[in-house]
Amino acid sequence: MRALVKDVAGPGMTLKDVEKPVVGPTDVLIRVLKAGICGTDGHIWNWDKWSQARIKPPLIIGHEFMGVVAEVGNAVRAVRVGDRVSAEGHISCGICLLCRTGQAYICEHVKIIGVDRDGCFADYISMPENNVWKLDPAIPDTWAAVFDPLGNAVHTVMAAGVSTKSVVITGVGSIGLMAIPVARAAGAAKVIAIDINPAKLELATRLGADYAFDARTEGLQQRILDETNGDGADVLLEMSGSGAAINLGLSAVRNGGRAALLGLPADNVSLNLAEHIIFKGLTVLGINGRNMFETWYQTQAMVVAGRIDLTSIITHVMPFEDFGECFALLKDGKAAKIVMNISDLGAR
Amino acid sequence: MRALVKDVAGPGMTLKDVEKPVVGPTDVLIRVLKAGICGTDGHIWNWDKWSQARIKPPLIIGHEFMGVVAEVGNAVRAVRVGDRVSAEGHISCGICLLCRTGQAYICEHVKIIGVDRDGCFADYISMPENNVWKLDPAIPDTWAAVFDPLGNAVHTVMAAGVSTKSVVITGVGSIGLMAIPVARAAGAAKVIAIDINPAKLELATRLGADYAFDARTEGLQQRILDETNGDGADVLLEMSGSGAAINLGLSAVRNGGRAALLGLPADNVSLNLAEHIIFKGLTVLGINGRNMFETWYQTQAMVVAGRIDLTSIITHVMPFEDFGECFALLKDGKAAKIVMNISDLGAR
Amino acid sequence: MRALVKDVAGPGMTLKDVEKPVVGPTDVLIRVLKAGICGTDGHIWNWDKWSQARIKPPLIIGHEFMGVVAEVGNAVRAVRVGDRVSAEGHISCGICLLCRTGQAYICEHVKIIGVDRDGCFADYISMPENNVWKLDPAIPDTWAAVFDPLGNAVHTVMAAGVSTKSVVITGVGSIGLMAIPVARAAGAAKVIAIDINPAKLELATRLGADYAFDARTEGLQQRILDETNGDGADVLLEMSGSGAAINLGLSAVRNGGRAALLGLPADNVSLNLAEHIIFKGLTVLGINGRNMFETWYQTQAMVVAGRIDLTSIITHVMPFEDFGECFALLKDGKAAKIVMNISDLGAR
Amino acid sequence: MRALVKDVAGPGMTLKDVEKPVVGPTDVLIRVLKAGICGTDGHIWNWDKWSQARIKPPLIIGHEFMGVVAEVGNAVRAVRVGDRVSAEGHISCGICLLCRTGQAYICEHVKIIGVDRDGCFADYISMPENNVWKLDPAIPDTWAAVFDPLGNAVHTVMAAGVSTKSVVITGVGSIGLMAIPVARAAGAAKVIAIDINPAKLELATRLGADYAFDARTEGLQQRILDETNGDGADVLLEMSGSGAAINLGLSAVRNGGRAALLGLPADNVSLNLAEHIIFKGLTVLGINGRNMFETWYQTQAMVVAGRIDLTSIITHVMPFEDFGECFALLKDGKAAKIVMNISDLGAR
Repeated sequence: MRALVKDVAGPGMTLKDVEKPVVGPTDVLIRVLKAGICGTDGHIWNWDKWSQARIKPPLIIGHEFMGVVAEVGNAVRAVRVGDRVSAEGHISCGICLLCRTGQAYICEHVKIIGVDRDGCFADYISMPENNVWKLDPAIPDTWAAVFDPLGNAVHTVMAAGVSTKSVVITGVGSIGLMAIPVARAAGAAKVIAIDINPAKLELATRLGADYAFDARTEGLQQRILDETNGDGADVLLEMSGSGAAINLGLSAVRNGGRAALLGLPADNVSLNLAEHIIFKGLTVLGINGRNMFETWYQTQAMVVAGRIDLTSIITHVMPFEDFGECFALLKDGKAAKIVMNISDLGAR
Repeated sequence: MRALVKDVAGPGMTLKDVEKPVVGPTDVLIRVLKAGICGTDGHIWNWDKWSQARIKPPLIIGHEFMGVVAEVGNAVRAVRVGDRVSAEGHISCGICLLCRTGQAYICEHVKIIGVDRDGCFADYISMPENNVWKLDPAIPDTWAAVFDPLGNAVHTVMAAGVSTKSVVITGVGSIGLMAIPVARAAGAAKVIAIDINPAKLELATRLGADYAFDARTEGLQQRILDETNGDGADVLLEMSGSGAAINLGLSAVRNGGRAALLGLPADNVSLNLAEHIIFKGLTVLGINGRNMFETWYQTQAMVVAGRIDLTSIITHVMPFEDFGECFALLKDGKAAKIVMNISDLGAR
Repeated sequence: MRALVKDVAGPGMTLKDVEKPVVGPTDVLIRVLKAGICGTDGHIWNWDKWSQARIKPPLIIGHEFMGVVAEVGNAVRAVRVGDRVSAEGHISCGICLLCRTGQAYICEHVKIIGVDRDGCFADYISMPENNVWKLDPAIPDTWAAVFDPLGNAVHTVMAAGVSTKSVVITGVGSIGLMAIPVARAAGAAKVIAIDINPAKLELATRLGADYAFDARTEGLQQRILDETNGDGADVLLEMSGSGAAINLGLSAVRNGGRAALLGLPADNVSLNLAEHIIFKGLTVLGINGRNMFETWYQTQAMVVAGRIDLTSIITHVMPFEDFGECFALLKDGKAAKIVMNISDLGAR
Repeated sequence: MRALVKDVAGPGMTLKDVEKPVVGPTDVLIRVLKAGICGTDGHIWNWDKWSQARIKPPLIIGHEFMGVVAEVGNAVRAVRVGDRVSAEGHISCGICLLCRTGQAYICEHVKIIGVDRDGCFADYISMPENNVWKLDPAIPDTWAAVFDPLGNAVHTVMAAGVSTKSVVITGVGSIGLMAIPVARAAGAAKVIAIDINPAKLELATRLGADYAFDARTEGLQQRILDETNGDGADVLLEMSGSGAAINLGLSAVRNGGRAALLGLPADNVSLNLAEHIIFKGLTVLGINGRNMFETWYQTQAMVVAGRIDLTSIITHVMPFEDFGECFALLKDGKAAKIVMNISDLGAR
């Protein structure tokens, strides 16, 4: 089968023929129809410091996808050949404290597809049945392909709790952008988006943000206070990983507010804990992956109910063969979310 | 001043001239502009069993209103003459365990205006400053007049937690109707309304319910399961007080679901606790009044953000003098919410 | 192997030789050392109405036990032959909404050992690896044999939340008795036990209850108010399943309190929902089984830390052969918890 | 009356005669019997950077105390002359969002006695009735005098939630020491204390810590993992304000754990947010003051139930006149908690 492989310890990837994956007794073989490209894939392509430490070539890359079940192991119980599915890409151990207490998303021994084991930029991928998510027919293929990052947005929004709240989102890359309609669908009364990329801010407004501010605007903290009754925002959704944005965001949250941190800083961040967290009585939540599988139920419920629309976030749908152009677009910063057509079993 | 008074222990009320209320040092005198009529007012009019036990004539009736501040006591700190206000009608003691721990809505010694002390169907009402709520200019007078029942709906919806959830509402009187747009604004993915009044069910659909079922429909429990992936609804909002509706509602909630009970049964209700609550691992919440003042902040946030629309719920706006006709309409069951114009300081 | 079998649809059970259970690839065969007798086993012995509807003879009875792993299937990953273990007796489907969202204890398709499939009153039992709990060496065998009912107590106490609280326990059968040291270990400031059995009430006091009241005491509700600052108890743990006790318990809880219901009423219960739940703003929790596996972690943590002592609750340890005497003791109501020595691989 | 006054902008304080405070209509005049000395008082004595920015001399210092009511304003409702009381030293505005939603402990306009207005190191102090706490007779005077810092410990422990949990406390100054018996009383299964002061660590062990480690011990993070099943501690209570301790503490908490931060860092702290908070799915809580008045109810319940013992923490009880020696002891680091006898209306 074809697969996009990181085959050497350096920049770039290669589209090549490889063996189809082995399907164990509790596994499901999925023919991949569509796959989304994540910022992480870009880091791996570029072979940055993080990639050098984590990735062991050769490895098939990619972790956002949907497809159709082509084969099931003999101990598979609920998934059938022909099922239209997406899958949770974090494969948890099932044995540790977290897995045994309903928090598999922070499993101590998690393996991530496309990072720790072969991923989905390939004609086929083998997944444990437990990780497979059967798709409601109402969900378009292209949206289903990005349930992984959409789930990050839903997990962050739902952990923070936004019903009737004012919400600041720092960083509107593709997940931050998705968080805008998700927050509105989840009941947010006001959404304020912050970034430094004018195109993303413009898109944020189109997606329903009440305000979209350049992070470098003078007096921005005061401006946010003005828009939030002088108290500050009820909720911060931090999706940039930037130290400056984290500090700005925390300064914009009101006493007793909640801050959910999803963006991953590359380095340590210096925080004024006394002023921004302790005196304020803030609740700060670290968010990782998707809550298995509550987030998937929530995501599907929102999409099927027609509460969110991803059309303008998926800016590009491209052929698998054009992967090089896709990664160039990603680097360029102009695309929001890029989806590749991997196989051709019908498109919706 | 004019006031609608329950002056004898029997059916009916009388519009008469009474003394203007006294304003203590921490009180605020409010000129009442508009007032809503509640089902409870109808019980008092009819002098039912509950009224006979609770109401001590003579008493000015009414507890839903808005108006303009006419006078403030000398120890009042934050409210000014001319402020446009509504008010929380549950006057809590400030001293009991509940009041001192942020749960004044279940104060052990609560006094309710229009029930335990003089109410708002009058040209003026005196309220403790603590109970006064300053209205955002974006809120129409007519809507502000019904923040009390709207707050009941918001309290119930927010206590249950509906973001991304499927919600069954049993009983769509005026509060149940309000709960429909409130639940949708708070993020509900699916809303199923149940009642026996065809006009209310029709209005429920117009307000955004995905389904509106007559409670007597054969196989209704199964029908609800069919609309909720076979699991049952995530959330029940019980707003009828009917034993049959409570049992139907509980049978329609999924394992691990939440049921918020607002409707007040007149008598004991027989429940299958084992099947409907214990085996299911249900969470059942008794809901009383409005969470002071979190509910008020939430309600205002929803209205100001334009997330809810009460236009079609307020079916009648009538002159104070026509109170008799108002109570006849109420009894008839055809009105949803009736608002009376009490004084005439401008209308919005 | 020997097994205590319900082999006919009528009262009694038979100790007989049966085939050793089959061990599937993900199963674990456990040599049973000790097993506890539950009230449910007594219902099955007596062949009451519930048993007639649920139990399909022939069936090996029993669901509380500990033992040593004798054999493991070829796909078992973390359990080894020789491991000293107990096991969760509710076998969940792994596929339904509840199982996939960390709430397997309310699985829609649960199978219970000794009820829906063969149980532990036998030399061997086969269990799915997922249900097996490896025992800390500090836990005595006899205590490990009753982790199932102890877990019921822990689940109820932890769901209610008792730290610094006053707690009323209605019904001090063996689980209610266990709830006393558990509640104290979990931080309860005051524990009030209520029952009608003088021996159980006496034992409740020895186990640390501050007060132990006969449920028929005149003015008991007022007495509880007197002991709880006039407010009522913070928490009710209902462990009797008696309608009268449930009503008494609810009347003794303060506004804003929490009631956790574990006891299973045989029939419908008539409740004053308005006075006891709605006006009070109560939170009522249905409790089923043990939260998998958070409850097991909590239970083990308490026992290993020496925070609870079950010595006086396990009133009888008897040979397997004396099962008839055990069931007679159970019926008699004088025993608290009876443990049978099933096999003889050493005793602790 | 006598008062210990910060009368110049520089080190030291002066015991001098001043006017008795004015008692407004809703105020209570309290004759101070005993008062505790806090680290903050030491900062003010030393006139450190924080004091220079915040304190406006002349000011009576002190915020931990108990006494007897000597006079009440004419609008006081529930407090009587002769009542034995302590008081919440954070005076909230009553008007802001936080005050109106049950979170007065993070009031946007809080005034603290002994910091922003006159404090309790004086024969009398005037307090708003709302802040007064009537003492149960079972509480010794000396303990009542330190309900303020004890309440900090209770607030932190209860916000974190410790029932059945393993708990790391970083920093065992007087509040950290108090947190040890509080955590055990609240149900903690294991308590690990960390500090660099050998005397405090020794006292920690006497107070019930299972382990007391010098923060500089090599391999300490691994040592904590070893004592917590290899997962890490369930809960961190951070009471040092030291950046190094915060980082150590966060590294010792397990995935999905909770960290409550009470200690106030003097400067920014550099954190590895990705590794220590985000990937772990941690919940971090900023803790300020005492939850009004839930913390006071919880504290009183624990003390009255005999669940905690402060005897060994209150290392010194000294005459008011020896204030200079008290502050020297405080600076020396050998005292845990120092209480001064202010007036002499009987001692318990």
